[in-house]
Amino acid sequence: MEFSSKIVSDAVEALSGFPGIGRRTALRLVMYLLNRPEMEVAKLAESLIKLKTDLHLCTFCGNVSDARVCDICNNSSRSNGILCVVEDFSDLMAIESTRQFSGRYHVLGGLISPMDGVGPDDLSISSLVQRVENESITEVVMALSATIEGDTTLFYIGKKLKSLPVKMSCIARGISVGGEIEYADEVTLGRSILQRTEYNL
Amino acid sequence: MEFSSKIVSDAVEALSGFPGIGRRTALRLVMYLLNRPEMEVAKLAESLIKLKTDLHLCTFCGNVSDARVCDICNNSSRSNGILCVVEDFSDLMAIESTRQFSGRYHVLGGLISPMDGVGPDDLSISSLVQRVENESITEVVMALSATIEGDTTLFYIGKKLKSLPVKMSCIARGISVGGEIEYADEVTLGRSILQRTEYNL
Repeated sequence: MEFSSKIVSDAVEALSGFPGIGRRTALRLVMYLLNRPEMEVAKLAESLIKLKTDLHLCTFCGNVSDARVCDICNNSSRSNGILCVVEDFSDLMAIESTRQFSGRYHVLGGLISPMDGVGPDDLSISSLVQRVENESITEVVMALSATIEGDTTLFYIGKKLKSLPVKMSCIARGISVGGEIEYADEVTLGRSILQRTEYNL
Repeated sequence: MEFSSKIVSDAVEALSGFPGIGRRTALRLVMYLLNRPEMEVAKLAESLIKLKTDLHLCTFCGNVSDARVCDICNNSSRSNGILCVVEDFSDLMAIESTRQFSGRYHVLGGLISPMDGVGPDDLSISSLVQRVENESITEVVMALSATIEGDTTLFYIGKKLKSLPVKMSCIARGISVGGEIEYADEVTLGRSILQRTEYNL
């Protein structure tokens, strides 16, 4: 694809850097922007720049935040004793939107993945251990993806916290709500049998 | 989906305005940007703003261009006598990338579509008629989509140019190259029979 305009070509190049957006889609986005008012495009550009200049990571949990301390850590009505450990802030948001967790969070900033060159020191694991030691945490809920990287990170953090007086738990794995047993994969189905819960009428 | 940060929420809101990008994809794009260097995000933002501030529409053909006159209109080796009429500059680019057309273009800026409130006066049709009158054009190649809007626009321009001494042609409709007859829709197949071309060995 050749562009008669360098400005268009630059914009397409920049947008096609996004994950899942190729040059054709990028061109469609540029076409769309060309037809939008200048104010709107300026606002979009500004909001993108602000992501890098104005956004903070909460000094306590590592959640993205407009201030030095995020709304959740600042909320005194949230129980202090329970920490939920997540990979990144989109996982945090997913859990928040369930409205089933009233404790606080700890954002690791990734998962241990030797293949991608991510080791334990690249993640906020030592700060997690410090928080458990200093903030009278009673339970650490591990909410990591059920992948090799998630399990590796779970194992590593488990060993780190083993000597501390804290209960460690793990979100349940099993058949998804509404899921049919026939179509569930064997590993998930196997786990759901091993970790069956008591059924009380 | 709730956001703990207004900055993130603003960026997601702005990005989800794009066609085909919902809030979930927008969040994924924001997550991606958060992990990119500030320079790169600034460059992206700048290239988007430039689309509105620095880009011109060629005074002759309406193609997007970095200068007042686009590269194609400026290129003296391109034949002056033939004009290709297209809906927008992405169609122009698609035709350019075939390298089969050596004339110049005329970008309408849309198609007549009463449903969307787009009438002939919203498009560059009168300037097309002017060019045909003044630039000694011998042929106008209509390269519009084979839709109701495309056909309406084709018909309207056809009536406008009828009294002028110019040949009007239309890009061929038919079975796509590599396409199987079995799977072609009836209308296309019908047209391809009506507009069959002579086969010379």
